[in-house]
Amino acid sequence: MGGDHAPEEAVKGALSAASLINGEILLVGIPEQIEEHLPHNRPDNIHIIPASEVVDMHEKPLEALRKKKDSSISVAAKLVKEGRADVFVSAGNTGACTAASLLSWRQVTGVKRPAIATIFPSHTSHFLLLDAGASPDVEPENLLEFAVMGRSYAEKVMGRKDPKVHLINIGEEPGKGNAFAKQAHDMLAGHDWFAGNIEGKDIFSKDCDVVVCDAFVGNVVLKTAEGVGEFIMGEFKAAVPSGPLKLFFLPIRKALAPLKKKFDYAEVGGSPLLGLNGICIICHGRSSAKAIHNAILQGAKSAEANLVNAIRTSIEEEHAGKNQ
Amino acid sequence: MGGDHAPEEAVKGALSAASLINGEILLVGIPEQIEEHLPHNRPDNIHIIPASEVVDMHEKPLEALRKKKDSSISVAAKLVKEGRADVFVSAGNTGACTAASLLSWRQVTGVKRPAIATIFPSHTSHFLLLDAGASPDVEPENLLEFAVMGRSYAEKVMGRKDPKVHLINIGEEPGKGNAFAKQAHDMLAGHDWFAGNIEGKDIFSKDCDVVVCDAFVGNVVLKTAEGVGEFIMGEFKAAVPSGPLKLFFLPIRKALAPLKKKFDYAEVGGSPLLGLNGICIICHGRSSAKAIHNAILQGAKSAEANLVNAIRTSIEEEHAGKNQ
Repeated sequence: MGGDHAPEEAVKGALSAASLINGEILLVGIPEQIEEHLPHNRPDNIHIIPASEVVDMHEKPLEALRKKKDSSISVAAKLVKEGRADVFVSAGNTGACTAASLLSWRQVTGVKRPAIATIFPSHTSHFLLLDAGASPDVEPENLLEFAVMGRSYAEKVMGRKDPKVHLINIGEEPGKGNAFAKQAHDMLAGHDWFAGNIEGKDIFSKDCDVVVCDAFVGNVVLKTAEGVGEFIMGEFKAAVPSGPLKLFFLPIRKALAPLKKKFDYAEVGGSPLLGLNGICIICHGRSSAKAIHNAILQGAKSAEANLVNAIRTSIEEEHAGKNQ
Repeated sequence: MGGDHAPEEAVKGALSAASLINGEILLVGIPEQIEEHLPHNRPDNIHIIPASEVVDMHEKPLEALRKKKDSSISVAAKLVKEGRADVFVSAGNTGACTAASLLSWRQVTGVKRPAIATIFPSHTSHFLLLDAGASPDVEPENLLEFAVMGRSYAEKVMGRKDPKVHLINIGEEPGKGNAFAKQAHDMLAGHDWFAGNIEGKDIFSKDCDVVVCDAFVGNVVLKTAEGVGEFIMGEFKAAVPSGPLKLFFLPIRKALAPLKKKFDYAEVGGSPLLGLNGICIICHGRSSAKAIHNAILQGAKSAEANLVNAIRTSIEEEHAGKNQ
């Protein structure tokens, strides 16, 4: 029920993903609204779970969850808690999804703060940046948890072997940055998977697996990248004439199609919320059917790889000092 | 002597700017190396001030200044201190320029932390973002100083009338963000020039005059924007074939020329260091003659507008509570 195009795009995404996963898709929300977009002969593995309320995109998360006990977000989180589902996918209110998951599932033992991991395109492939917005005020040591959780996701879901972790900083050398970054660097140093500081300029050009930072910085990276991308593309569109001359610009449109695909967040699905006893995939509010489709596949892959268990084990090992 | 193309580009930039300013240009550095790039009949208002040493781009600022007492950076800062110059322009080691200016000139009374203000292009024009790297660890109240100093620059040098100030935050509504951003918001609220929170996505599309944040966040915005810009332009270049088909892409190259110009940091000159008893314009290490040329004009304009005095008065007024 969440997102700008709900429930139509969510239902369409579920329909196209249904034949590609081993398992069931539970569509949580107001049944009549969901059924409107379902064909009569729907796939066997799609079911509707009723929820009578909807959290708006701009509602205050905790307040909304308190007031709307039967919201689709609360009901979906509860399904995972009760073991009736493995993954919760939503394009709804991010704060409410995070809060509902946290309150219902709680953190994996040893994880103090959950993190939203965003998948970014880069010159060579993709990298994972976390925290992109789950925990606004953290301590430097929480970035060590983010690193360990990010590595688990990169390995289990993105298929990276022995993923490396970079720390966002304002300078490459050790000793650079503000007090927070210096302390975070000290916490990460000594791990053989730690690849050192990296500047915002280099995250898109170097081969990164996992990049860690606090949620404020992560959100600034995410939004600035989005803003610059839209700015350049907007100027580009404005530069292309709309008359018959437009024809001369067809080759460049064609040539840029792969670039457009690379930047399309719908291609990766959503952003996993890591560190809780359950898997939540948070999708962009503007998510299309394609984005939801890919988020469902991403969630299914995370569940099949037993991501939560992998994080639990890595965090235990980290705390036991096995990796140091 | 600083920057990747010193002293040639610096000297060329000075030569072309000389006829456009009311005043003298003092070229500080190793005389033989400077003279190599000066014509025999040089403009009357260009002079050489000898300095025997050069701070390298990667030297630790304080250490370098301590060891190299006769570095071009130290000598240039001293010229301003002694009233023999109004402005110090450099494409050299940013940390060393900031430290030399701070140690030699000291802060304007009432300013606790200086800030580097970077001029960004936006959809409609330009905006000033500060701090982009001068003061890594600040308190929320320092952002109020940044706002006041940024307004002075926007008004006196960029010609903005009653410039507005936005605070970078991870959400638009008051009450959003981490503890630091919430406190900074409270410090700024109540000023009629405060336009509220802004997200990194919107700084390039909205009409902004001044945007404030701490140096870590500011540097992340700067570097991320640079990284995304280079990434898109790199993919763009890769998409254009190099054979005879290249011809088909000429119209788009031509159409995109204004965009390229908009993104060219050489067009704006450099980044002013604000809050000290003197004017320092910090240029990109890769600065071309055009960048130095524009930085000299920018510095001359700042001196003619008596920027330091304007900042002093605004800070006094702010502290006297006149603006509240």
